Order: sequence, then C-alpha cells, then structure tokens
Amino acid sequence: MIVSIIGLGLIGGSVGKRLKEVGFADLVLGVDLSDSNCAKAVELGLVDETVVYQQAIQRADLVILAIPVDGMTKLLPAMLDAIDEGTTVMDLGSTKEQICQVVEGHENRKSFVAAHPIAGTENSGPEAAFSSLFDGKTGIICDAEKSQRSCYELAKSCLLNLGMHIIEMDSQSHDLHIAYVSHISHISSFILGQTVLEIEKNEANIFNLAGSGFASTVRLAKSSPQMWAPIFKQNKKHISKALGAYIDNLAAFKTLLDEGEEDAMISCMDNANEIRRVLKGIDSKKRTDSPIKEEVV
Amino acid sequence: MIVSIIGLGLIGGSVGKRLKEVGFADLVLGVDLSDSNCAKAVELGLVDETVVYQQAIQRADLVILAIPVDGMTKLLPAMLDAIDEGTTVMDLGSTKEQICQVVEGHENRKSFVAAHPIAGTENSGPEAAFSSLFDGKTGIICDAEKSQRSCYELAKSCLLNLGMHIIEMDSQSHDLHIAYVSHISHISSFILGQTVLEIEKNEANIFNLAGSGFASTVRLAKSSPQMWAPIFKQNKKHISKALGAYIDNLAAFKTLLDEGEEDAMISCMDNANEIRRVLKGIDSKKRTDSPIKEEVV
Repeated sequence: MIVSIIGLGLIGGSVGKRLKEVGFADLVLGVDLSDSNCAKAVELGLVDETVVYQQAIQRADLVILAIPVDGMTKLLPAMLDAIDEGTTVMDLGSTKEQICQVVEGHENRKSFVAAHPIAGTENSGPEAAFSSLFDGKTGIICDAEKSQRSCYELAKSCLLNLGMHIIEMDSQSHDLHIAYVSHISHISSFILGQTVLEIEKNEANIFNLAGSGFASTVRLAKSSPQMWAPIFKQNKKHISKALGAYIDNLAAFKTLLDEGEEDAMISCMDNANEIRRVLKGIDSKKRTDSPIKEEVV
Repeated sequence: MIVSIIGLGLIGGSVGKRLKEVGFADLVLGVDLSDSNCAKAVELGLVDETVVYQQAIQRADLVILAIPVDGMTKLLPAMLDAIDEGTTVMDLGSTKEQICQVVEGHENRKSFVAAHPIAGTENSGPEAAFSSLFDGKTGIICDAEKSQRSCYELAKSCLLNLGMHIIEMDSQSHDLHIAYVSHISHISSFILGQTVLEIEKNEANIFNLAGSGFASTVRLAKSSPQMWAPIFKQNKKHISKALGAYIDNLAAFKTLLDEGEEDAMISCMDNANEIRRVLKGIDSKKRTDSPIKEEVV
C-alpha cells in the first residue's frame, strides 16, 4: 500500500516512521511546503521519498493530512475533487466540526475519514517525530457513518497500526469535549508562561527557582503558535466558554485568597483533587481494541 | 549524628530515607501527629524510630521541620526556647518571610537555618517518600547571615547530602520570586482541574479524551490542600499580584479569541514560547556546588 502524508511535522513525520516500521505501508510519500522539512524527513527515514502534491494524491491508496487545521479546511474540498476512486483521505486535525462541514455534501465525502489522534508533544517539526508517539493513545474517528465502509476500515486499521485504541463520536461532540480537556490546557499553559516571563524580569530567577512543578505546568507553552492559533479559531465557541469558566474560577479563588478564606480555599482544592481519580483512569487506560501486538509486530 | 524529623510526609520521609542511606545521620528520629504515618515511616525505613516531640528535640543534633508552614510559624518560637545549645533547627517550608519573622530577635535565632528545597511531587504522605527526591534540585537558604556559622554549615551539608545544589537569598526575595515561579503554577493547575471537572459533567469524557498535555497541566491539582492553603495564605501579597496578572492576561487572550485576532494570538504565544529557552536552562541545570559524588557516595 502507498501512503502519502501531507505535512511532515511532529505528527506527519511520526505517522510515516511508524507505518514504515510496522509494514502497514510499502511506500510512504511525503509532501511539505518547506524544502528543509522534506530533506529532514527523508534523512530521518520518516518517509521514503518526497514528491509534489499532485503526485502524492494520485499515487496514494491512503492520503493522510497532518497540517494546521486552517490549511485542512482550505485544501480538503479540492483534494476530494482530485482523488481517484478508491483513494481514502484521512485528516488528523485537532478540530473536527469545521473540517467535516467543508466536505459536507461533497460527491466524494464518503472517501474521507475525519480522525484525531490524541497524541503530541510540545515539540514540532520533523526532528521531533518518533514512531511510538501514538502508542496506547486514543484515536477518535468522527462522523464515521459518513465514510464508505472500506475507507473507514482502512483509516481505522491505520490508527490501530499506529498503536492507538479507537473511540467514535460525532464531530460536534468532539469539538465540545476536546475544548474542555485539551484546548483549554494549552491556553492555560501559554498564558502562564507569558505571565511569568512578564512579571519575573530577571530570567535567572526563573532558571534558578523553577521546579518540576512549574516545568510540568508550562510545558505546553512551548507548543507551536502556528498550529494552535487555527485550532483556537476553529473551536472558538467552545474554547471561549471553557476559558470564561476558568477565568471566573481563578477570580473567585483570588477573592478567597485576598479575604483569607482558608477553609474555602481548601474546599476548592479538595474538589480539584478529584482529578487524581480521573487521571488514574488515564494512566491505566486499557488498550483492549488495539491489535498491534497480534497483527503487526 | 542524630537527626530528628518533625513531619513524616513526602518531604520529611524522603529526607530521612536519604540521610540514612548516605550515612549523614547515624540515627534518624521521627515525629508525626498521625500514628499511622509514624508506623508507615518506620515500616518503610524512612526513620529509625519514632519518638515523642520532646525527646526528638532534646536528643537531636539537627532538627528538621517538614510540616505545613502554618504549623512551623506556630511551633518554631517554642522549639527555639526548648533546644539545647549546639542543636541546629532547619525548616523546609515553601514560604520564608513569615517563618523568619516569627523567630526574628529570638535569643536562639542563630541556631535556626531557613531553607526551602525546590523539590516535591503531587503526592503526599510517607508512602510517597523516596530518597532521590532532591537529587539535582535547588536548595535555597535564606537570611544565612542570621544563622551561626556552624549551624549554617551543618544545614548546608545536610542539603548537599540530599543531592541538592545551594543558592542563597533573603527571605523577602524568596517569597516574591517563588510566588511567580512556583506558587502560581499550583493555583493555575488546581483551578484548571476544578474547571474541567465542573464543566465536563461526564467524567468518562475526561478519561477518554485527556492526553498527556492535560495530564501534565493538571498534575499539580493533585497536591495536598492542607499543605498548600497555608502557603497561599502566608505568601498572599505576592501570589495575589501574580494571580491578578495571570487572570488579566487570560482575559486579554479571551478577547483576542472572541474577536478573531489570530495574528495577535500568535504573537502572544510566540512570547510564551520563550519559556522553552528558560526551561532548557532548568533541564540542564549544573550541579557544580554539590559535592555528592565526591564526599558521600
């Protein structure tokens, strides 16, 4: 099978490397606007060769889109115009509603599978790619009923070969819940990084005094602005609501602090402690539907 | 040397275990209000034996305080009243200004060393203790000039034996800078955990959709409220200022989001990205002043 990957950054590069390693793809073709990314991706073995866009979508059995989400909504309709029958297109964007909307009603809508691998790091570019990025993580397929069965199965098999377990939901629910659980974390972290850099004029103090707790909390502040701004924009409605709730809760906590309401602060933190139970679930997430051990390795 | 540790949680327990392992202490005595913590600490080898408070401070060469900071300000003056000449007292609290204030002018002030190891995890209690907790981390000694030279040297040697490198500053500066770099991260994380739990009524969604980014950002929300509330209260002035700046920046970002100002969002995140450079410094922090390799192992 020939897989073409559009966008050779952290996500696209990691997909290519893994699909080559496990033999899911016989040939991985890569496309990237940046010549340097293309050269790096070949050098690092993330793809077999890089080609021009037209070749990539003509030769591929499966085209995987791994570019910023604003690029996806621009590119997808024309891509579905151009593909041959029998080609499957899957996107890996962090928003799903607008992406599904732009292909709604397209005559080749059935060739498209909307997916979101909940995997990533704060690093970007082909140098950041590694083949185990998706191991044990959740892969979401949205609006599955709008994809042709064969395309859905191919896309699902690809995600399983990446090491993921699969859940399905509609694209609106995806954007709502992912705003709370993923997108808002990134804003929290970006703005914490910004605030500490602004308020702590002497960087040596940050260097000397920051512990692992600070590093953990601002890790996501290192993420790519070019990737995240379009996500925030596409999921504005839900993120704005979540961010508003976060700001209100912070302001309420500040009032408790300013007024010396220690018991109320403790009660608020006790509630937050509940996240431990939920995160324990995350840590021990089962991979029951991943056939990676039996079928691939 | 006999070391007594008051408070056998994550910090006190980890100190005991390490000081026994490296031979800095010939005997480690432990004190805790909780009988179950006492039993666990002995069972886990964190201390050699547990004793009553009076015995602990009478028999020790070095008394180490590892209890919540409100307990420290209550306990310290009477402890300095009660110690023999030649006994050194060191606290390991996360605030320093009020702790130093309560012993200011005490006739045994010189026997006291104010310290803060920038180390910890989101877990608490003796079961959470481990001897490498402090390895390579920063140990801060405050207002060193107010401690007798021999007491200062003993306390410093203890921190070095824990594996830390030492920096020194005055207690006011400590509280100012640590508010920005540590305390504010905890509030950011507590309130993010609270907000997501409130807004996402179905916990299965958090369980299924949260990735490593969310887990990293809310890790500190698992921290002990009983430990953190007194810290926030004692360092209210600085934390309130930092928290206010954080809220203002979040609100400004929300406005950019709501108004679709993508370029301005990118510019803001670009600034936050600068934290990568600063954190790289953290990751590669040199341990030039730690003699742990030569003297202890």
